[in-house]
Amino acid sequence: MRKQKTVKESYVRMTELVLPNDTNTLHNLMGGRMMHWMDIVSAIAAQKHSNRIVVTASVDNVSFRESIKLGNVITLEAQVTRAFSSSMEVHITVWAEDIPSGTKVKSNEAYFTFVAVDQSGNPIDVPEAVPETDDEKEKFAGALRRRQLRLILGGRMKPDDATELKSLFEQ
Amino acid sequence: MRKQKTVKESYVRMTELVLPNDTNTLHNLMGGRMMHWMDIVSAIAAQKHSNRIVVTASVDNVSFRESIKLGNVITLEAQVTRAFSSSMEVHITVWAEDIPSGTKVKSNEAYFTFVAVDQSGNPIDVPEAVPETDDEKEKFAGALRRRQLRLILGGRMKPDDATELKSLFEQ
Amino acid sequence: MRKQKTVKESYVRMTELVLPNDTNTLHNLMGGRMMHWMDIVSAIAAQKHSNRIVVTASVDNVSFRESIKLGNVITLEAQVTRAFSSSMEVHITVWAEDIPSGTKVKSNEAYFTFVAVDQSGNPIDVPEAVPETDDEKEKFAGALRRRQLRLILGGRMKPDDATELKSLFEQ
Amino acid sequence: MRKQKTVKESYVRMTELVLPNDTNTLHNLMGGRMMHWMDIVSAIAAQKHSNRIVVTASVDNVSFRESIKLGNVITLEAQVTRAFSSSMEVHITVWAEDIPSGTKVKSNEAYFTFVAVDQSGNPIDVPEAVPETDDEKEKFAGALRRRQLRLILGGRMKPDDATELKSLFEQ
Amino acid sequence: MRKQKTVKESYVRMTELVLPNDTNTLHNLMGGRMMHWMDIVSAIAAQKHSNRIVVTASVDNVSFRESIKLGNVITLEAQVTRAFSSSMEVHITVWAEDIPSGTKVKSNEAYFTFVAVDQSGNPIDVPEAVPETDDEKEKFAGALRRRQLRLILGGRMKPDDATELKSLFEQ
Amino acid sequence: MRKQKTVKESYVRMTELVLPNDTNTLHNLMGGRMMHWMDIVSAIAAQKHSNRIVVTASVDNVSFRESIKLGNVITLEAQVTRAFSSSMEVHITVWAEDIPSGTKVKSNEAYFTFVAVDQSGNPIDVPEAVPETDDEKEKFAGALRRRQLRLILGGRMKPDDATELKSLFEQ
Repeated sequence: MRKQKTVKESYVRMTELVLPNDTNTLHNLMGGRMMHWMDIVSAIAAQKHSNRIVVTASVDNVSFRESIKLGNVITLEAQVTRAFSSSMEVHITVWAEDIPSGTKVKSNEAYFTFVAVDQSGNPIDVPEAVPETDDEKEKFAGALRRRQLRLILGGRMKPDDATELKSLFEQ
Repeated sequence: MRKQKTVKESYVRMTELVLPNDTNTLHNLMGGRMMHWMDIVSAIAAQKHSNRIVVTASVDNVSFRESIKLGNVITLEAQVTRAFSSSMEVHITVWAEDIPSGTKVKSNEAYFTFVAVDQSGNPIDVPEAVPETDDEKEKFAGALRRRQLRLILGGRMKPDDATELKSLFEQ
Repeated sequence: MRKQKTVKESYVRMTELVLPNDTNTLHNLMGGRMMHWMDIVSAIAAQKHSNRIVVTASVDNVSFRESIKLGNVITLEAQVTRAFSSSMEVHITVWAEDIPSGTKVKSNEAYFTFVAVDQSGNPIDVPEAVPETDDEKEKFAGALRRRQLRLILGGRMKPDDATELKSLFEQ
Repeated sequence: MRKQKTVKESYVRMTELVLPNDTNTLHNLMGGRMMHWMDIVSAIAAQKHSNRIVVTASVDNVSFRESIKLGNVITLEAQVTRAFSSSMEVHITVWAEDIPSGTKVKSNEAYFTFVAVDQSGNPIDVPEAVPETDDEKEKFAGALRRRQLRLILGGRMKPDDATELKSLFEQ
Repeated sequence: MRKQKTVKESYVRMTELVLPNDTNTLHNLMGGRMMHWMDIVSAIAAQKHSNRIVVTASVDNVSFRESIKLGNVITLEAQVTRAFSSSMEVHITVWAEDIPSGTKVKSNEAYFTFVAVDQSGNPIDVPEAVPETDDEKEKFAGALRRRQLRLILGGRMKPDDATELKSLFEQ
Repeated sequence: MRKQKTVKESYVRMTELVLPNDTNTLHNLMGGRMMHWMDIVSAIAAQKHSNRIVVTASVDNVSFRESIKLGNVITLEAQVTRAFSSSMEVHITVWAEDIPSGTKVKSNEAYFTFVAVDQSGNPIDVPEAVPETDDEKEKFAGALRRRQLRLILGGRMKPDDATELKSLFEQ
């Protein structure tokens, strides 16, 4: 039988300080730097779930609504939502904090997907990911729908076959 | 009348060399580093179209199918596909080349969206983007559909109102 | 009356991945890189306690006993132990984890001291730091002794006046 | 008989320019960056003495009294003070210079300890370090006392056995 | 017979954004950073011509006449001008663009020379480089003269033997 | 009368460790990284002579004959050779040392030229540079000849007017 691990075991929290080279000429954090951090924190979560080296397979739509300033403290939290055979979806939440002014906002949420690989770079099976809380169960259930959307957007599934995804239009 | 510029005028090509710090322990390029480069090349394309400072507004689904090795040469090409009032969608294509072995593969395609801002960081109108070739016209037309998908995924449009997006399911 | 905050409110957790440029020719993490991370995580803890910009005032003795490898995941936890008028002592614990092999060791512990400053760089008072758990209370009590040691080592106190420090020799 | 080298032979001077990413939001050099440089310069001194790869074993108390600004030129000088079987203590002095204004201050002094290792990472004996000048002889003599303090602070020696260290309280 | 490739096949275009750490305290790009980029773009051109790993052999005189500001977009174009047995001369042109103000200037031109090497680092023959346009033919012809100047400046040719170089004084 | 300073007063020594990101796939130092360090060390020498902010004006021919490996220690020494009205020529010598094997080679020599500028970036006069040793006097004398070569190569002097440079052909 396939090994099981709770999704909570993959939880990772990472903290970063926005330095000058991370910012544009308005002293705002550049989106690409943020995605670089998101990739690292979620790769570590996927590593913790699989105890394997992992490679980024896909990044879902990410929105950037808040402008984040030089000197802000960024907190990123990542946790596996669901495992498929060799791939894992990871959910990431990002907060930006301006400590001197005492403000803290949730700046981003995203889903990244990783594949576990062996030393030769070939995909290898990972444990099942077991959700426990209501929020974890909801993200676990939604993972199928998001996966179909990824396959369609990647040109690897026909929209007609995306039975789960259609629920998106009836939410 | 609103100023017009061809989409071609925003074209940017960037070349990067994969260095040790860009790679994981299997010596493969990390996805986050790639996204960092994608963000820079597409921000420059959006700057060229708008002659403004721009900020990343969103990143559409990105897939990583090829493993890219240490020492590879990465070529990124970016071009605005369509401008809305103050935002611009940019299409990015990425090639990875292993020069000693003479292999070159298209490794990624993606859409990033930027907002043009003034010196205080407030959104400001940009010129219209005029497509000329068939490929440019197709990407221009598809921009509406991708925009609806972004709005739905960002929780800012109800699926029922996404008339353009529905065409995705009838392609 | 002086404002009070629990020491727990300053808690910060940071996660880092050991990249090639962080390592020596044996692929072990260099001590200076580790201290760079320790400084950032503890500065953020001191910022959270004081809601001020902070500058590093001193670093206590740090030992490096474990060799940490390329690709390891480093977790740093920092929390203020005690506040003096404008300075704060922060305790840092560091773990190094080799995820594929499933090993995790506590690699370092250290105390860093920071001074809160205003926009002109002048020291400014910070809230009192209130310990709650037994471990927090013990670190709070020991802070006086460590402070005397710092003052002696920095040539700013005569050993004879270090009444607290002498307890070190009777532990 | 064990090989001998003068401490002078290990002397290293390093110069660094304070760049934007080395500074906090007040444009002052961050302490962690300084320690990163101290570690590199002193590791090179220990390498020169031992002709071996070396790893950081410990860092003694470091005080930061001067605020160092963006654009300053930092000069670090390092020299081995004494060698034990496979370890070496290195003394580091740091000056910060604001060239346009013509000011130069000694900003830090510190002791770092390194262990020489072979290609498998195992400790290996190093030459004796022979002091020649009065200053070198004083630092050589003090090395025993500092070593006992490190062992006590690291929990590896009982204060009662630290006969040398007690002299600290009678200086 | 020796393999032939057109010089055009080696053409590379690279785009860089001037970030804070690339600049001095006047927020102008530092010359060393520019040369770092020139080296990378021209190494890629030499790699494309030779399909080999290449090492920098020499850099000809480079002038810096324009001050380039933080946030500027730098475009570098490189193309092999002529191949000798195992070495290749590459011509590089650099433009600096201030997009918001719509100004673009040619900031530098330079010649870098590379040697193609095998996996052991030994020089290895490269294809002939065939010029096609008038400009390419002129640079191809001038390559001999520049090569003699390099040899004299490097102390490896006596000025009397530099028959080609003397034409420099009769231009 | 114009202020005078000895050339010795501008002497700077810098030490760098070759890290993974500084190397190509053969683990050899890339030429561009070396030039980046040369630019920093010589800019500091020019700053020390002029007590001004300086900008790179030109780089003379640089040859790379030695392959320098990952982990090597690089020592760069720079000293002003001669000052013109607002510009200064700086001579740089570079050594590469493989400490475990005990080998040290002179890897490069180069001349960089800098212009001193005021806070608005306008050229400003610098002190005269006075040579003292025979070697300093020889470099001082040669500076005129090298300056003519730079002007010719930069298209700002006709070869016929380069009376000093012609001596190059009679050495």
